Amino acid sequence: MLNRDDFLGARRRIADVLDPTTPQYSRTFSNYTGHEVWVKPENLQRTGAFKVRGAYNKLSRLCAGGARPGIVTASSGNHAAAVAWAAQPFGIRARVVMPEDAVQSKLDAVATYGAEIILHGKYADERKSHAREIAEADDCVYIDSTDDEDVIEGQGTCAMEILEELPDVEVIVAPVGGGGLMAGVSRAVTVAAPDVKTVAVEPTGSSSMYQSVRAGAPVEVDVQTIADGLRTRKPGELPFSYVSQCVDEYYQVSEACIVDSTLLMLQRMKLLVEPSGAVAMAGVLDGAISGSGRKVAVIATGGNIDLDDLSSLIAGGLQYEWGDSMRPE
Amino acid sequence: MLNRDDFLGARRRIADVLDPTTPQYSRTFSNYTGHEVWVKPENLQRTGAFKVRGAYNKLSRLCAGGARPGIVTASSGNHAAAVAWAAQPFGIRARVVMPEDAVQSKLDAVATYGAEIILHGKYADERKSHAREIAEADDCVYIDSTDDEDVIEGQGTCAMEILEELPDVEVIVAPVGGGGLMAGVSRAVTVAAPDVKTVAVEPTGSSSMYQSVRAGAPVEVDVQTIADGLRTRKPGELPFSYVSQCVDEYYQVSEACIVDSTLLMLQRMKLLVEPSGAVAMAGVLDGAISGSGRKVAVIATGGNIDLDDLSSLIAGGLQYEWGDSMRPE
Repeated sequence: MLNRDDFLGARRRIADVLDPTTPQYSRTFSNYTGHEVWVKPENLQRTGAFKVRGAYNKLSRLCAGGARPGIVTASSGNHAAAVAWAAQPFGIRARVVMPEDAVQSKLDAVATYGAEIILHGKYADERKSHAREIAEADDCVYIDSTDDEDVIEGQGTCAMEILEELPDVEVIVAPVGGGGLMAGVSRAVTVAAPDVKTVAVEPTGSSSMYQSVRAGAPVEVDVQTIADGLRTRKPGELPFSYVSQCVDEYYQVSEACIVDSTLLMLQRMKLLVEPSGAVAMAGVLDGAISGSGRKVAVIATGGNIDLDDLSSLIAGGLQYEWGDSMRPE
Repeated sequence: MLNRDDFLGARRRIADVLDPTTPQYSRTFSNYTGHEVWVKPENLQRTGAFKVRGAYNKLSRLCAGGARPGIVTASSGNHAAAVAWAAQPFGIRARVVMPEDAVQSKLDAVATYGAEIILHGKYADERKSHAREIAEADDCVYIDSTDDEDVIEGQGTCAMEILEELPDVEVIVAPVGGGGLMAGVSRAVTVAAPDVKTVAVEPTGSSSMYQSVRAGAPVEVDVQTIADGLRTRKPGELPFSYVSQCVDEYYQVSEACIVDSTLLMLQRMKLLVEPSGAVAMAGVLDGAISGSGRKVAVIATGGNIDLDDLSSLIAGGLQYEWGDSMRPE
């Protein structure tokens, strides 16, 4: 399994191209929860999501020594943009299998970075199979968005940064979709700061990782959530293995809580996050962290939401009665 | 006039209570403009706007040595919240004259901080006269939002921070409403880094400072702009004096450009700014900075916009054809 030096190596690699995302303290959310709440704003990361950490780390290892393999990946969103972006400095051919009903803005982003787009199917498993077939036929490298140790190593750099930026952090909270981020974060914390707790938050409507951990092996579940980045029907073996061994606690949040968290982070922290990016905070606001006064780092994973979709969320308004301390300040 | 030591003193005072706002680099806006564009995100400042710098500096001076004078101010928005917030640690009575048609969220914010609200009139001059009358009748201190040297000194700390955070900055761009921020920023730059240029941006529909500078004295103009924080009919003597002596260049932006800048900062930088807070960036995007490759710091002054109003802006969409480099990245 990955060790501390692996994550430190990944940190050095990504430091060449990625800007730091400085944790931001939220007095509002701290007052409301009784903890000291910091946000790691990966929505401010290049391409608007943490995914570039894993993608760039992967390609950096693949292209070491001047190799220039063609690559193929499959994604509906942030991983697609991340791979396309990361491929640019290496001058390699990148192809991305995206769903036939992909959002225009995501297609635009991938095209802007110069990757070739192949439209195929609607579900992740269809896309991935197709991408693997292309890779095999063309002697290219298939890059999975989560079931890949180099990708997991890259995502772990997010936790390594938090441990440096907030040296006395006690809890790190992240969302789980495919589990690549959670695998990297929980493993990095286990090997670099074993006293720090990790909490994994999933939508109640898409909790394949929690169900798998309970079952002792990856299981398939139905998924139904607004958090489009977390719609994973069945986790991969590798992220499952890491998460089940390294994560301390699990928590599930409702759809209403995810929407409210998205709106509250916008209104109170002035940060635009996509629903998937608000899931970890939704857990914290809903009471995932026991006790009081703990120093908590919450990973806001991405900010790629169409403004029209944001308008729809605003029109729906807040769903909960949040109490006085959540009033405008 | 204020000198370097004055601004350094203000910096020390506000450092007790205010969080740093770390400048954020925008690759999108840099590519688009041909400059190196950084945003000083004062929307992430306490109370959601830079105004707390001046308000806290003022009250800190007033209450030096344990004095506890009652205070009265007048404002429709961010200055009201800033004074109410800053008064709390000093335990002094704070009253704020706000317009009869004040936005509910602004009233809520001021009330949350424990200030007393007095509703009076609709225009700034009516509010200010009423606040001055109260101060005189009750032997309290009236605090003007811009026409006050301690407030200007506090606002100047924003520039002092930029000079430290971006040591090789070449241009600092800020919006002008009443001129308190622009006075502090331009004076701080003049005394601390005279080679750095300052650019003042106003809405075309509310350009009282530029008209006054042209006329050689404060003049009154009609104001009509979506940038509600910049609706000043006539600048005060003190900010006029500073601005006219210290600002290097002036620029005006259209309403469409302000709205687009608000939406683009949200979509591309993932930052929620209010229209007034997007005015400086609107100037930069519209071509205010000549030449190319200059390192530019743009002050995003605040982020207090009701989400419903934001939805209306989104529904209107972008007004300009911004070209390929402004497409999603």
